[in-house]
Amino acid sequence: MAKTNKKNRDPRWIYRFDQLKKVEKHCPTWDDVKALLGGKGANLAEMTRIGLPVPPGFIVTTEACRAYLASSAFPDGLWSQEQEALADLEEATGKRFGDPANPLLVSCRSGAKFSMPGMMDTVLNLGLNDETAAGLAKLTSDERCAWDAYRRLVQMFGRVVMGVADEPFEAVLRDARARRGVTNDADLPADDLREITRAFRTIVQRESGREFPLDPRAQLRQATEAVFRSWQGKRAQDYRKAAGIPDDLGTAVNIVAMVFGNLGNDSATGVATTRNVSTGEDQLEGDYLINAQGEDVVAGTRAVKPIAQLRSEMPAAYEELARIAALLERHYRDVQDIEFTVERSKLWMLQTRDAKRTARAAVRIAVDLANAERITREEALLRVTPDHVDFFLHPQFDPAAIKRARAEGRQIATGLNVSPGAAVGMLVFDADRAEQQARAKQAVVMIRAETKPDDVHGMLAAKGILTSRGGRTSHAALVARQFGKPAVVGIFAMEVDAEARVVTIRRPAGAPLKLAEGDWVSLDGTTGEVFAGKVDTMQPSVDDPHLIELLGWADSVRRLGVWANADYPRDAIRARELGAEGIGLCRTEHMFFEAERLPLVQRLILATTTTERDEMLAKLLPMQRADFDGLFRAMGGKPVTIRLIDPPLHEFLPRHDDVAREVTVLETRLSLHDGDATALGRELATKQALKTAIESLREENPMLGLRGVRLGIHMPELVKMQVRAIFEAACACQRDGVEVHPKIMIPLIAHTNELRLEQTMLEEVARQVMDAAGQHVEYAFGTMIEIPRAAITADQIAEDAQFFSFGTNDLTQTTFGISRDDAETGFLTEYLKKGILAENPFATLDERGVGKLMGIAIELGRKTRPDLDIGICGEHGGDPRSIDLCHRLGLDYVSCSPFRIPVARLAAAHAALRHGGKRPKKEKRRKAAKA
Amino acid sequence: MAKTNKKNRDPRWIYRFDQLKKVEKHCPTWDDVKALLGGKGANLAEMTRIGLPVPPGFIVTTEACRAYLASSAFPDGLWSQEQEALADLEEATGKRFGDPANPLLVSCRSGAKFSMPGMMDTVLNLGLNDETAAGLAKLTSDERCAWDAYRRLVQMFGRVVMGVADEPFEAVLRDARARRGVTNDADLPADDLREITRAFRTIVQRESGREFPLDPRAQLRQATEAVFRSWQGKRAQDYRKAAGIPDDLGTAVNIVAMVFGNLGNDSATGVATTRNVSTGEDQLEGDYLINAQGEDVVAGTRAVKPIAQLRSEMPAAYEELARIAALLERHYRDVQDIEFTVERSKLWMLQTRDAKRTARAAVRIAVDLANAERITREEALLRVTPDHVDFFLHPQFDPAAIKRARAEGRQIATGLNVSPGAAVGMLVFDADRAEQQARAKQAVVMIRAETKPDDVHGMLAAKGILTSRGGRTSHAALVARQFGKPAVVGIFAMEVDAEARVVTIRRPAGAPLKLAEGDWVSLDGTTGEVFAGKVDTMQPSVDDPHLIELLGWADSVRRLGVWANADYPRDAIRARELGAEGIGLCRTEHMFFEAERLPLVQRLILATTTTERDEMLAKLLPMQRADFDGLFRAMGGKPVTIRLIDPPLHEFLPRHDDVAREVTVLETRLSLHDGDATALGRELATKQALKTAIESLREENPMLGLRGVRLGIHMPELVKMQVRAIFEAACACQRDGVEVHPKIMIPLIAHTNELRLEQTMLEEVARQVMDAAGQHVEYAFGTMIEIPRAAITADQIAEDAQFFSFGTNDLTQTTFGISRDDAETGFLTEYLKKGILAENPFATLDERGVGKLMGIAIELGRKTRPDLDIGICGEHGGDPRSIDLCHRLGLDYVSCSPFRIPVARLAAAHAALRHGGKRPKKEKRRKAAKA
Repeated sequence: MAKTNKKNRDPRWIYRFDQLKKVEKHCPTWDDVKALLGGKGANLAEMTRIGLPVPPGFIVTTEACRAYLASSAFPDGLWSQEQEALADLEEATGKRFGDPANPLLVSCRSGAKFSMPGMMDTVLNLGLNDETAAGLAKLTSDERCAWDAYRRLVQMFGRVVMGVADEPFEAVLRDARARRGVTNDADLPADDLREITRAFRTIVQRESGREFPLDPRAQLRQATEAVFRSWQGKRAQDYRKAAGIPDDLGTAVNIVAMVFGNLGNDSATGVATTRNVSTGEDQLEGDYLINAQGEDVVAGTRAVKPIAQLRSEMPAAYEELARIAALLERHYRDVQDIEFTVERSKLWMLQTRDAKRTARAAVRIAVDLANAERITREEALLRVTPDHVDFFLHPQFDPAAIKRARAEGRQIATGLNVSPGAAVGMLVFDADRAEQQARAKQAVVMIRAETKPDDVHGMLAAKGILTSRGGRTSHAALVARQFGKPAVVGIFAMEVDAEARVVTIRRPAGAPLKLAEGDWVSLDGTTGEVFAGKVDTMQPSVDDPHLIELLGWADSVRRLGVWANADYPRDAIRARELGAEGIGLCRTEHMFFEAERLPLVQRLILATTTTERDEMLAKLLPMQRADFDGLFRAMGGKPVTIRLIDPPLHEFLPRHDDVAREVTVLETRLSLHDGDATALGRELATKQALKTAIESLREENPMLGLRGVRLGIHMPELVKMQVRAIFEAACACQRDGVEVHPKIMIPLIAHTNELRLEQTMLEEVARQVMDAAGQHVEYAFGTMIEIPRAAITADQIAEDAQFFSFGTNDLTQTTFGISRDDAETGFLTEYLKKGILAENPFATLDERGVGKLMGIAIELGRKTRPDLDIGICGEHGGDPRSIDLCHRLGLDYVSCSPFRIPVARLAAAHAALRHGGKRPKKEKRRKAAKA
Repeated sequence: MAKTNKKNRDPRWIYRFDQLKKVEKHCPTWDDVKALLGGKGANLAEMTRIGLPVPPGFIVTTEACRAYLASSAFPDGLWSQEQEALADLEEATGKRFGDPANPLLVSCRSGAKFSMPGMMDTVLNLGLNDETAAGLAKLTSDERCAWDAYRRLVQMFGRVVMGVADEPFEAVLRDARARRGVTNDADLPADDLREITRAFRTIVQRESGREFPLDPRAQLRQATEAVFRSWQGKRAQDYRKAAGIPDDLGTAVNIVAMVFGNLGNDSATGVATTRNVSTGEDQLEGDYLINAQGEDVVAGTRAVKPIAQLRSEMPAAYEELARIAALLERHYRDVQDIEFTVERSKLWMLQTRDAKRTARAAVRIAVDLANAERITREEALLRVTPDHVDFFLHPQFDPAAIKRARAEGRQIATGLNVSPGAAVGMLVFDADRAEQQARAKQAVVMIRAETKPDDVHGMLAAKGILTSRGGRTSHAALVARQFGKPAVVGIFAMEVDAEARVVTIRRPAGAPLKLAEGDWVSLDGTTGEVFAGKVDTMQPSVDDPHLIELLGWADSVRRLGVWANADYPRDAIRARELGAEGIGLCRTEHMFFEAERLPLVQRLILATTTTERDEMLAKLLPMQRADFDGLFRAMGGKPVTIRLIDPPLHEFLPRHDDVAREVTVLETRLSLHDGDATALGRELATKQALKTAIESLREENPMLGLRGVRLGIHMPELVKMQVRAIFEAACACQRDGVEVHPKIMIPLIAHTNELRLEQTMLEEVARQVMDAAGQHVEYAFGTMIEIPRAAITADQIAEDAQFFSFGTNDLTQTTFGISRDDAETGFLTEYLKKGILAENPFATLDERGVGKLMGIAIELGRKTRPDLDIGICGEHGGDPRSIDLCHRLGLDYVSCSPFRIPVARLAAAHAALRHGGKRPKKEKRRKAAKA
């Protein structure tokens, strides 16, 4: 794509903001433009084109960055092109780079195709040195501002370009503030700042072994390189991994003439979003500071003012800003996140981009824009991600528990409610520990004074985030919103001592409260409250009217059915409320684990006589019947898929290790004559018998052992009882006028003969029950496809099975030869970290492997039986990317846990929008097959 | 196929021996003829056609049998056709059925398409009753013979048709012999036999509740039915299952005019084979008895005479017999097993069939017939089964051990050497127990007075067979030879008391020896010796010149390469001797289990510091290098495929249960103050640490856990050491002028990235070693295909892998979702018994499932890399039916254990003969892909 520069034969590496037309000549789409110029640069150029007040500047392309990273050197022609562009900039501004008389200052900012806020580097105020600083002071009549700009350059350049840590700089500032008795850097006088600048240069020299470059062109060149390099920084890489951004894009570099919001009280700087990005309400929101530079707003070191105040403080600038905001939202057809500076009453636009937003805001904005006919409903659907919907399903605090917590005085602080949802966890004070404890399955809340990009991995691992500083647009707030982590920031009553791992909370009355690492806290990102200890969370509610409207649109678009995995009537009821169109998986064995049933199940398994076994089955029958009765009534008329017992029997018995230990203890005591030999002997005999029984069921690889249909064949009485219970319940419901559609699912089929044998036996039971009841129930028998052999012999299996349901948990295990239980805490983590697997195949379907087997099974199955119903009931059924694959494979429905149903509804709609709903309906397939 | 009889409209159920032409009209092939008439009937008809002296008779077809079995009744028309045929027989013989003046007697014999000797029923002497017996006595002037025939009829009819046990009949005979003081039934006078017959009829009446039918036609009808029914008898079913004969063929029934070998000293009866069926030597072999009926020869109740004696006793009959034998062998182009009777000097042929033979005989006969140009070499190859070849690989006794055993007086008996090979096992006295103990993996030798068809399942389960009675053609001998079980029969010095489960052995000197169930014995089926206790067996030898010749022919026919699975140089040497063309699998971890290495491996696994780990690796390196050095030298120039470490690490550590037990014992003792607390505490700490370490490696499903390539990625040092050892050895060999072709095989690949990562790392090690040695070794990296995902993504995997080797053990486990360890002692047995699986997929490749995945992998792999080498190294590589599939799939080679190599060579030749050698050679594939 690189164009050859006319003057020499090097590729073209640079475009000015006013050269968008040239770019578009070889970038046919806006996406291509962003890929070349980065999002920030592309938008600056676009704003320039539509006549908005953007300071002059130019963009070093992502191609230049990639060329640099490939060779670790400036590509041929880049530096000369950069100097030419600088000359253009001098001409446009009438200032000269390095000229003390009228110095041009520029910023050097990263800007990749996809926004990665704060993840890469920026250097402001390039062009300053002792001479130009003095010149600037004279020119602006603002010595303080000039020296403040200079010291910021040295500090920022030192950190970004020369790798000097912040701490020594901050120490100098701290001392200076202490000497002057001020709390804010802005209150330091010019002389102090001059001294500080000198001290900063000494620090740079001492820490990096190199001088701070006084030559502005050297500054520019080195800053450009540093921005290039920051693409490869660890935090940028971590972010990309988390956000799914490819690693090979590179960043563009924006060189922009500096404008100053800190030239006095007629200057200001701020950020705003064109709508409220927490709630989605249609009003301009943001923060600004008078007499400040942009970074001050983001850093949250000074208390910012809400944007509404600007209207009274600078009416003209506000009106202009509001006009531009509205224009940008219409222009980009989405809510914008803008940065601006007012320099001596003149408004400059420094950035615009699609605003990040909370899930709630995303839904509302999408629905509002569609209803206002600014976008289509399809676009609205695509603007909301499945994760956004998921967010509505996040736990919220139980109102009663909150009331109680407040009454108990456990509400210990409040802050800014920047990312909604409730979180409960143990405090941790750094990102590494947060990650580590989360891996150990502990719920943690990460607490920091403020977060930096280095903290992202910890934030992702935590249940929630607390910071004592920062505002709504702080790093912590942005990241939390993006990843749906509940967060409260700017809790000024808190003092975080990360070293001592203690937070001290000042309270209106009484002594300060101290919490240490490991203490439990609860936070409500929706209200901004923080509580000591655990506060109960409650089941999510999805009664948001915008969400309901959006999901209705989704339902009218999607082709995939959305069913639920539900074991109990209460789950079934919830699933229906959330939109389930059937039950795709009822795991009957879950019912066996209930307290009053487990002893019966254990006696059944250990029974040595048929009489005892029959007795236990007779006791279990009415319980199972009641279960199914409840399910049928809850789903009234919708299909209910019931899987017969699946897990190996030993799962219902005490753990072997425990019993073996008890036996050994008894044996040892007996041999040491500790206690009554007769009593011990009796006890030993009992335990020994239990141990022997458990051992007879013990397997090397239970996952691949006696379970599923194998169990049904080995011990037919149990599954016969289950089928009897199903049909007795179905007949009873039908008698009561409740429509029933039981689908009986036989798990773990590897060979068609297993299914045939089992199904024949069970259909006989079904017939007996229906005959006895004088009822006919419409039922179907089918199977899980969860073993590779079942997939590749699906044509044979479909001779008997009337439906297939992909059990993708097991299918993934067997297709990969990976035991999930072992791997997810072991080598699979290592594989994901090393990039051997791009993602966990137990979370997202492995399209290439498991997906291919599914495709084979579907093709073969429908060849035998064109009207074969095919669904999925593995956990993947609730994963959006897996749902996309299921759509493409032509499944009839996905089945997932009730709380994933709204997510699945949207994801299914996305799939239909992306790939078209071209799957022929079953009726068509049937006809096509007949033709 | 059933033709309508002209006279009525019923199908034609019956053909006379002289009506073969009619049969052939609608049976185009000899196979069809045999299917309709049974083997025995077809051959009797054929002998009739070529003019041999066959008594007149007719055949009730297998179709009639099937019709009878389907409806449990004589099909329409059968009985009237049978009576018509009987009338023809009367005409042919000039005798009349049931006519005391000139009674026709007939035999009623079963005869299915495939020979099932002794498995179904036969009734002789039909047509006798009090009147006809008297008539026969008068006619033959042999009252004794007539009454003997009658009493035989009653006994045989009682047993076969009326279900009366033998024991009460035998008791009557025993008493009669005792009263007369004779040891042989033949010495009982006619009067006694008349009494005995009367007693027999009383027994039948008492035991069955029904009269023995005196009407000859009722006898015939009931006998025909009984023969039909015997097709469904348990022993026939067991036999068919073992021999792979389909269950739905049915048996024909041969009704033949009786001829008598017991009409005096000018009469005789005998069996013979046209060559020696033990050794294959070209001479008529067999046994006969003067003045006897056929069953006396087979039963072995009288001492038979070798056929050579017939030459002097009955020269004319012998010459005629020898002439016919030679004629039949030429006619059928194979060695024949014939039955004959001489009735008053006239020779009658009662049966001919292809002779069952020992493996040694099969090979020699095939080679001799081919060299005599009676059959082609291809036919010769197809006449020898892989099992025959396998037999040459059965253990033989170590000559030194035999010599020692003889010197120690442990040779306790000798008998007839009817089925070669050495067997060692514990004595069991009945078939059920033999089967049961074999299932528990115990080596057993089954001992009986004589065997019956009911015993076959025990004989199959036993390592070897001993009987105190019976001859070379006894049931025991026939079955043992067919199934390759070493057997010694006719050990007359032994008295077997099956009830008391004791065998008493009379010895030339000293007191009789008693052995009880469970005592160890060793037997040599090649020499006929029996030894007390265990005698060491030695590695088989395959230096039989006929076998060598045959395998040479196989090599020139087959397309599949035959490689060996060999872990040690000694295995490699043996493999080459047996014809291996390379090593397809060296399991490097086997080397780790050796006594001096295991402690190092354990310390390596448990190492907590890098130093300790490196130290252990440094100690293991030279050992592994020496292993590989030996392998390369043994295989000089042939490819050696080395699989890097595969099993989960916990396999190298003590068993968790044991260590856990020790910990519990120590804890309990400590808590009960049993012993020195300090010492106990120290011991406990050590054990506890070991337990913790083992637990950290413990997995729910180790088969699907941290093993194979996963281990290599997790702990790279170990595989790096292995590759270093391989290349150091290879360089050293090459320096010594030994050609080396190492192929490094990375196991358990599921995703191409695993292979790429591992291979890249290891190729770097290889390069380093070669650079350091200044050598270049020609090597290849490849992978096992043993996980379904590897098979279905083989196109990606072949981008890196230069060869594939199917690990069909694991591939079968994952494709079926079956853990072999658990299943083969559990539900898999149940599945095989219930017919859910026709055969154990771990023994014979599952073509439909696993085979399909293999086909996919081959197609995809060669699409990426047309010259991809593909082999198999699972146990299936030595299984003939799996080899056939491998040939059809287009594999390059099979690799199997050294002792299966000759088997594989023949099986590969069979595959090529059956399916053609159409697989394009690699060079062709490469060219085709380029075109």
